[in-house]
Amino acid sequence: MRTIEWCEDHVRLIDQTLLPGELRYVEIRDVNTMIDAIRRLVIRGAPALGVAGAFGVVLATHQVRQSGADIAQINLDALHLAEARPTAVNLRWGVQRVLNVIGKCNEIKEICAMAEQEAIAILEADVESNEQMSLRGADFVASLVKGQVSVQTHCNAGGLACVEWGTALGVVRAIHERGMLRKVFVDETRPLLQGSRLTAFELSQLHINHTVVVDSAGPSVIAAGLVDVVLVGADRIAANGDTANKIGTYPLALAASRAGIPFIVVAPESTVDRATISGMEIRIELRDEKEVLNWNGNRVAPENSSAYNPAFDITPHDLITAIITDHRIIRPQSGEKM
Amino acid sequence: MRTIEWCEDHVRLIDQTLLPGELRYVEIRDVNTMIDAIRRLVIRGAPALGVAGAFGVVLATHQVRQSGADIAQINLDALHLAEARPTAVNLRWGVQRVLNVIGKCNEIKEICAMAEQEAIAILEADVESNEQMSLRGADFVASLVKGQVSVQTHCNAGGLACVEWGTALGVVRAIHERGMLRKVFVDETRPLLQGSRLTAFELSQLHINHTVVVDSAGPSVIAAGLVDVVLVGADRIAANGDTANKIGTYPLALAASRAGIPFIVVAPESTVDRATISGMEIRIELRDEKEVLNWNGNRVAPENSSAYNPAFDITPHDLITAIITDHRIIRPQSGEKM
Repeated sequence: MRTIEWCEDHVRLIDQTLLPGELRYVEIRDVNTMIDAIRRLVIRGAPALGVAGAFGVVLATHQVRQSGADIAQINLDALHLAEARPTAVNLRWGVQRVLNVIGKCNEIKEICAMAEQEAIAILEADVESNEQMSLRGADFVASLVKGQVSVQTHCNAGGLACVEWGTALGVVRAIHERGMLRKVFVDETRPLLQGSRLTAFELSQLHINHTVVVDSAGPSVIAAGLVDVVLVGADRIAANGDTANKIGTYPLALAASRAGIPFIVVAPESTVDRATISGMEIRIELRDEKEVLNWNGNRVAPENSSAYNPAFDITPHDLITAIITDHRIIRPQSGEKM
Repeated sequence: MRTIEWCEDHVRLIDQTLLPGELRYVEIRDVNTMIDAIRRLVIRGAPALGVAGAFGVVLATHQVRQSGADIAQINLDALHLAEARPTAVNLRWGVQRVLNVIGKCNEIKEICAMAEQEAIAILEADVESNEQMSLRGADFVASLVKGQVSVQTHCNAGGLACVEWGTALGVVRAIHERGMLRKVFVDETRPLLQGSRLTAFELSQLHINHTVVVDSAGPSVIAAGLVDVVLVGADRIAANGDTANKIGTYPLALAASRAGIPFIVVAPESTVDRATISGMEIRIELRDEKEVLNWNGNRVAPENSSAYNPAFDITPHDLITAIITDHRIIRPQSGEKM
């Protein structure tokens, strides 16, 4: 089961807004529908957004071929795609990788073929990089924690955030396959519940022992000694190791630091943004306040209350024990840079 | 508007499960209905639970008078009342205060009268103690923060958690009345949303500028410098200053400590439990996992997922700048005991 696939002339996605109640696939045949799907979190997760961005450009090339529009239209569509969500750097990275390849071509037919080839390469590389991170991460956790391991995670850094398998949850899966996993505490991850909907769904499918907690319980679960290691994904990693990830990651890092347990970020190299010096410079996406104030379209808060809804927070590098990528292990806490 | 009132022969409560959509009062005429109301959080908040416990015993005395049952039944009912919620010490305290007074009487008519008198005294004292805490708290905040003040709060420590006015939110109100309040960030407080439902409701009624955030955003709001002080209530304060309060309080204390801003607990003396040496000994109420896994009766998480639902967490005393009661200011961070 892949989160995103290319099917000759269209993209096929799992609609993640409907999980776990319904496993429905959607077909995406034009770039604007892809932008809408990214904005509505039909597809989400930094690595998956990289792949979605790449195939968004492929769809743009097909549209130009069909309509006979100017090739410049592809760059315009690519710009809109890259801006669909501002924090995850992988989206821009995926878009740019395809643009770089087709920049050398003049003929639209060749452009379509080259774009498709590059996007498929990005997709396949994601699967491979997940495998590398998982094995490296499981080895690393085993070097720090003796015996059975209990993990705290946040949001969804599983197969649904990638093409398949997962980053932080890929490491969990590798630990599980080695018979070393005791259990996983899953933050529900308000406002959109990617934890209790998506991560719990993946862990259920894999028959992995897990327990959902409200986000604000994660830090005291850590303080109570119920967890040996925190494993999370990332949406952007600055040059100094400061990491943007789903809102609610920072409190887990604070709690892990106080409890003296490892706090580990697992993300592909495409999440690293060396052009951004520190977390201070990372633009945090602000989403609609209705995600906080309403539930299923029904108002929860008083009518005249407002909300502030940042989608991400920044975990400073001094709280991060290690960042595990598909190529290496960096230890920001020890002063290592990206 | 009082959260709880005595009306000759019954208790009148605001049903807090229906707010902010509906402001409905319920009449409680027997002790079992009171126990049920406490368990279902129709009434909640440590000081209000003290008053509810006291009037619960009053209802028990009336029932014995009407039924002609043995006076020993009052003690049995009182025991069940005190156990209805285990963490907030005020509930036991309110029950015990009435029991102490009626322990000297033999005649049921006198028992009824004495119980009623003591419960009314507890209710009136709560209003007065709130006023004292609010003024002391506002003075204390003014001594630490120069100029306009932005506050972060969690759960509901307002009039709805007391008889009227409030503890932590009482301080907010006093700061507001002095013209020194910029705004209040309100954690929504999952799973039962006492923040976005009750605190936002109270602040709306008072025309106080406020913004709701998901619980996991509180720590990064603090890290971003948007808040000058954290003000919260308490459900039990151990002898060393360790404080049990609504789940999600601890991460705010961690964030405040790192940001170097004051973290202040506001609670009446009845919340102090000197018999409990430290937070390690405080029994944390575990509530139904459905509060986390369901929404309005509809399942959110996969059917075979479970949840862990502690209602409170413990904030260690070294993270608490000050505890403000109706009688004094204690500085646990500086090693002061209760």
